[in-house]
Amino acid sequence: MLFQVKMTVIPPKDMPEKEFSDIKMKEKLYAQGLQEAGTWLHLWRIVGQYANISIFDVKDNTHLHDLLSALPLFPFMDIEVTPLCNHPSSIK
Amino acid sequence: MLFQVKMTVIPPKDMPEKEFSDIKMKEKLYAQGLQEAGTWLHLWRIVGQYANISIFDVKDNTHLHDLLSALPLFPFMDIEVTPLCNHPSSIK
Amino acid sequence: MLFQVKMTVIPPKDMPEKEFSDIKMKEKLYAQGLQEAGTWLHLWRIVGQYANISIFDVKDNTHLHDLLSALPLFPFMDIEVTPLCNHPSSIK
Amino acid sequence: MLFQVKMTVIPPKDMPEKEFSDIKMKEKLYAQGLQEAGTWLHLWRIVGQYANISIFDVKDNTHLHDLLSALPLFPFMDIEVTPLCNHPSSIK
Amino acid sequence: MLFQVKMTVIPPKDMPEKEFSDIKMKEKLYAQGLQEAGTWLHLWRIVGQYANISIFDVKDNTHLHDLLSALPLFPFMDIEVTPLCNHPSSIK
Amino acid sequence: MLFQVKMTVIPPKDMPEKEFSDIKMKEKLYAQGLQEAGTWLHLWRIVGQYANISIFDVKDNTHLHDLLSALPLFPFMDIEVTPLCNHPSSIK
Amino acid sequence: MLFQVKMTVIPPKDMPEKEFSDIKMKEKLYAQGLQEAGTWLHLWRIVGQYANISIFDVKDNTHLHDLLSALPLFPFMDIEVTPLCNHPSSIK
Amino acid sequence: MLFQVKMTVIPPKDMPEKEFSDIKMKEKLYAQGLQEAGTWLHLWRIVGQYANISIFDVKDNTHLHDLLSALPLFPFMDIEVTPLCNHPSSIK
Amino acid sequence: MLFQVKMTVIPPKDMPEKEFSDIKMKEKLYAQGLQEAGTWLHLWRIVGQYANISIFDVKDNTHLHDLLSALPLFPFMDIEVTPLCNHPSSIK
Amino acid sequence: MLFQVKMTVIPPKDMPEKEFSDIKMKEKLYAQGLQEAGTWLHLWRIVGQYANISIFDVKDNTHLHDLLSALPLFPFMDIEVTPLCNHPSSIK
Repeated sequence: MLFQVKMTVIPPKDMPEKEFSDIKMKEKLYAQGLQEAGTWLHLWRIVGQYANISIFDVKDNTHLHDLLSALPLFPFMDIEVTPLCNHPSSIK
Repeated sequence: MLFQVKMTVIPPKDMPEKEFSDIKMKEKLYAQGLQEAGTWLHLWRIVGQYANISIFDVKDNTHLHDLLSALPLFPFMDIEVTPLCNHPSSIK
Repeated sequence: MLFQVKMTVIPPKDMPEKEFSDIKMKEKLYAQGLQEAGTWLHLWRIVGQYANISIFDVKDNTHLHDLLSALPLFPFMDIEVTPLCNHPSSIK
Repeated sequence: MLFQVKMTVIPPKDMPEKEFSDIKMKEKLYAQGLQEAGTWLHLWRIVGQYANISIFDVKDNTHLHDLLSALPLFPFMDIEVTPLCNHPSSIK
Repeated sequence: MLFQVKMTVIPPKDMPEKEFSDIKMKEKLYAQGLQEAGTWLHLWRIVGQYANISIFDVKDNTHLHDLLSALPLFPFMDIEVTPLCNHPSSIK
Repeated sequence: MLFQVKMTVIPPKDMPEKEFSDIKMKEKLYAQGLQEAGTWLHLWRIVGQYANISIFDVKDNTHLHDLLSALPLFPFMDIEVTPLCNHPSSIK
Repeated sequence: MLFQVKMTVIPPKDMPEKEFSDIKMKEKLYAQGLQEAGTWLHLWRIVGQYANISIFDVKDNTHLHDLLSALPLFPFMDIEVTPLCNHPSSIK
Repeated sequence: MLFQVKMTVIPPKDMPEKEFSDIKMKEKLYAQGLQEAGTWLHLWRIVGQYANISIFDVKDNTHLHDLLSALPLFPFMDIEVTPLCNHPSSIK
Repeated sequence: MLFQVKMTVIPPKDMPEKEFSDIKMKEKLYAQGLQEAGTWLHLWRIVGQYANISIFDVKDNTHLHDLLSALPLFPFMDIEVTPLCNHPSSIK
Repeated sequence: MLFQVKMTVIPPKDMPEKEFSDIKMKEKLYAQGLQEAGTWLHLWRIVGQYANISIFDVKDNTHLHDLLSALPLFPFMDIEVTPLCNHPSSIK
């Protein structure tokens, strides 16, 4: 089941740079693990913004919420979720 | 070069149903041709809306505009374009 | 799997009253059928508006889109979909 | 008398984590007490957000305001209230 | 139980002037009846707009919805409802 | 001359609680004085929000601005002013 | 007593051109009469828009509403009213 | 050449009160100087807000930007600029 | 003196296609004349939209308004004007 | 390939003035280098705002993102990107 997720990062203002780098490193590993598992289908950077557009393939709503709320950057992101389904003109 | 495109259809109020069906049929063929050509990479329906989210892989901005403005439904759509690029955490 | 759906009706301006009444009657039967089937869990009127807030319990995104796009009033409604999941403080 | 209430939590930036955890624990107990009393009818998490959609069954406006303004997280929440009533197509 | 209601009239474009005048006359009588009954507590015109701000004193949400949806101008109005309650600094 | 005024309080984040309580106490006295003088006609709490809707009866725009900018909570409020006048359907 | 008024004209789509020209001619005469009377203090065109920004000097809110709602173009305008008063740094 | 300028002051949260008072005093002198020079034509307070609406008469865009960016309160203001020109119904 | 102008075309719904084509042809000639005169400095299409972003070099606000309001497509366009000036980091 | 980029600077509140001046100096050098290289085609100040409107001529989306995210002021800017292409009425 597919969802588009748009994530915009709002970096904390007071956190030491090293601490935030560590969180971003964990985020990268987490994101790559979910991509290898086939759950995080696509991950694109939006040009000119500290933001991404992603496509997730999950079992259900709870599955998606668990994945998103466990993102290391979750406390520093604004997240929009759009449920998708097959389009009648799609050839896939 | 990738772009996310969100298209929302606003059906005309006065057009005979048959005429609009013909346009939608042409749109379908056009969309399928571009998908087969590898230009219209993804095409998803947004749940509960007469709208889609698509990913295009084009040569440049002009290429994208020519494709979009030639859509049979172009006069009946609200279109938003978001330029994308590779994300540093993507494994592709 | 739960979704909140907000539907706002925008009545057509040119349709004969009888024709629109027939559509509303079909909508009522359709809504009641889905309620009896346990799919349309809750249906409330928003005070002062020709709009409702509903909770749907569906199998997946495609199931929800098929139900919504088959609503007799679908061409005359503005629809917003919000995916829900269990809340950690819920006692259910 | 039913109301939909949407609550979005905006965690304080300077509060020690332990102090905020204590407030969240009180919030949970408070929410569960009102659910057991049949006042807080439904409580759902919005997927991907630190937010919930709730349905309250209260005596009147004052009753609702007293409940909401006594929420332990009230100073850290953005709250939207929508008055509901019975829908003519509801089978309940 | 008090509610603020903001009503903005959007006159129909195709209705004969006489027909719309009749509806406005019915609206006036209806509004005056509810004011005399003590239900429609206050009714003010917003300066420069075809709109009003009103205060209703009703039994419950359903009572308010029944009153508003029975307004002769209801199909031609955009309505916003705000639930009110006693303010701790009010001397009333 | 009547105005609707909507005031939303945004409490300061760094002020000691005692200091803010003192300001709120002054606000209360100030509000009650103006109510007794017949200038601050109505004062209602918006359900679920740290906000009020008020009706002022003042001599002119300057009179209103002087009253509002002298509110002890003025530096901590977002204020919207709507000029009102008599409605032709009002029975007052 | 001063008010800023922003008026945006939305020309009717079905009215014969001659009929709309007549209304605009009446509007011009009406506007010039109020300017000569010292009530409509300033009248400026917003560059690139069929809109104006005006300053009115009126006795009270009712006076302003009566003037605005009597504008020949009133049914074809979107109007925003902002109450003004003396600024402490003004030398007038 | 005329421009409408709306300035909204957002006072700094951490600046000592004396320091901010000094800036406001400089702003006042600066504003009065430009008014005496005939450049800052009008300056009005918006009722209930720490904001003003002004009319500037300047040589060109650069002239206006130089004046605005030199305002002592410039770093603490949100500024909107609207280009104006003569209105065909103005008698001036 | 430079201005950025964004123009979005909203084609009329009832005009015969031939009549609208004639207007667009006049618009093209008008736009090319102003470009050759050095007044309409730049003219770009926004990708995926029936809209353009333009840069005008004009004598003053009145000059710009006269040019824009004389556009053959002016009655069918939504226009936004942004005054520009030299940037301190520009090398021109 | 052309893009319009609008950049709005939001200066940090806690950074020592000297440190921010250094960043702005680096930004200036960076901007001038890209202008000399013909990549940053135009750079204009928006009147009355700490913001600019720019035109970039880049190879592709990735090229633009790399340039923008390397701006010394990038962490302190809100950036909007609009893809442009040739307009059929342009004489260039």
